[in-house]
Amino acid sequence: MARTIQSLERAAAMLRLLAGGERRLGLSDISSSLGLAKGTAHGILRTLQQEGFVEQDAASGRYQLGAELLRLGNSYLDVHELRARALVWTDDLARSSGESVYLGVLHQQGVLIVHHVFRPDDSRQVLEVGAMQPLHSTALGKVLSAYDPVAHSEVVEADRETFTPRTVTGLEDFEGLLDLTRARGWAADVEETWDGVASVAAPIHDRRRMPVGAVGVTGAVERVCKDGELRPEIIAAVRDCARAVSRDLGAGRF
Amino acid sequence: MARTIQSLERAAAMLRLLAGGERRLGLSDISSSLGLAKGTAHGILRTLQQEGFVEQDAASGRYQLGAELLRLGNSYLDVHELRARALVWTDDLARSSGESVYLGVLHQQGVLIVHHVFRPDDSRQVLEVGAMQPLHSTALGKVLSAYDPVAHSEVVEADRETFTPRTVTGLEDFEGLLDLTRARGWAADVEETWDGVASVAAPIHDRRRMPVGAVGVTGAVERVCKDGELRPEIIAAVRDCARAVSRDLGAGRF
Repeated sequence: MARTIQSLERAAAMLRLLAGGERRLGLSDISSSLGLAKGTAHGILRTLQQEGFVEQDAASGRYQLGAELLRLGNSYLDVHELRARALVWTDDLARSSGESVYLGVLHQQGVLIVHHVFRPDDSRQVLEVGAMQPLHSTALGKVLSAYDPVAHSEVVEADRETFTPRTVTGLEDFEGLLDLTRARGWAADVEETWDGVASVAAPIHDRRRMPVGAVGVTGAVERVCKDGELRPEIIAAVRDCARAVSRDLGAGRF
Repeated sequence: MARTIQSLERAAAMLRLLAGGERRLGLSDISSSLGLAKGTAHGILRTLQQEGFVEQDAASGRYQLGAELLRLGNSYLDVHELRARALVWTDDLARSSGESVYLGVLHQQGVLIVHHVFRPDDSRQVLEVGAMQPLHSTALGKVLSAYDPVAHSEVVEADRETFTPRTVTGLEDFEGLLDLTRARGWAADVEETWDGVASVAAPIHDRRRMPVGAVGVTGAVERVCKDGELRPEIIAAVRDCARAVSRDLGAGRF
């Protein structure tokens, strides 16, 4: 008996629409994209605007996402126990590996980055917290797909896009990668998502042995790999970090 | 004729409730806090959960904010022109001042931090993007209050809290500070919000000469001040940065 509220579902669909693609849309674009009457769409937009979820550009009259979403998104990070437990360990991992560290959780059909430690080299870097990564081609995504049954069914049903010549998209090959991931306890992405970029990730478990996220190191393939192989000290450091965070979350030692 | 949608307003109130204070609440807490019948509250929560705005803890049954808010909050940053224009200039400001740089906009009754450049010294720092700062005591907040009439009416009506012995809370004294801010073109906060912390901020204007935000440097009072005065080179660097971003947004040179 899953009764839900239609106006809320429509409001959520509007926010998703404004978060993707065009990002600044007029009333007609929004109402026609969602198959709503203009009056209906306007009532929802007006309420979203009043609540700060949507802003209207004074000059063009177009709508865009509002500041309240940023404030609430930041509050989400504050309540996220996984992220809180991982802060110190991921800092250590960035320092020991000399590379960027990402912490990801399953969200919708991808990996949501909930924490990002910059590569400790003073270079200009873009914070990726809140960004999504694909499940089938990234190290974080493969770890989640291998250990989390919900992620697995998402990735199996999804349209697995080819990003580079090395992206694995065929289902049988991909399932083989997941078997390998489970056998080794970690996953890699060597130029399967971005040319020139390699990463290694391992799963984080909670006190009920549930896979709650993945942590990984990402960097230039020239640094993360050596002689065509992932550097074993990076793999070890990532797995140590994942184990430490899992222990902090109450997971058993074995 | 501002017709709004009640279920949406209630949903927004729930998200605000979950973003503040307790942060993990049961159905009874939520329904009684908002004066709703349990059945009504449950229908809204179920929809919010289905859309990813709320998550329910499996063990306790309590509700908390959901991951979709983080994803949408990140999209908000992507559409924010002010932030996009400011990226390079704020990086330069952090480098030249050796201190943290914040970019803030008016949101509700405070300053919402939309960009934060870490102090370039490899120390552990917490990202403040999405956090709120008070209007009446911070340098960013005073700049917005001095230049933006909406911010001004918010801060005049607000309950101006005392954070340190140096916080200015009386209306007449505070208006004096705003006059000074407009006369000098910048504002300061020397231990008025946090003990030991000083900051300097200047306004950013867009092509219509509207104040759209403020940029500032924040650091230990021992570094930002010298002999009890704000270091003039920091004030100059902050004002240069604000002018550069304003120019990039199309503001006139004078």
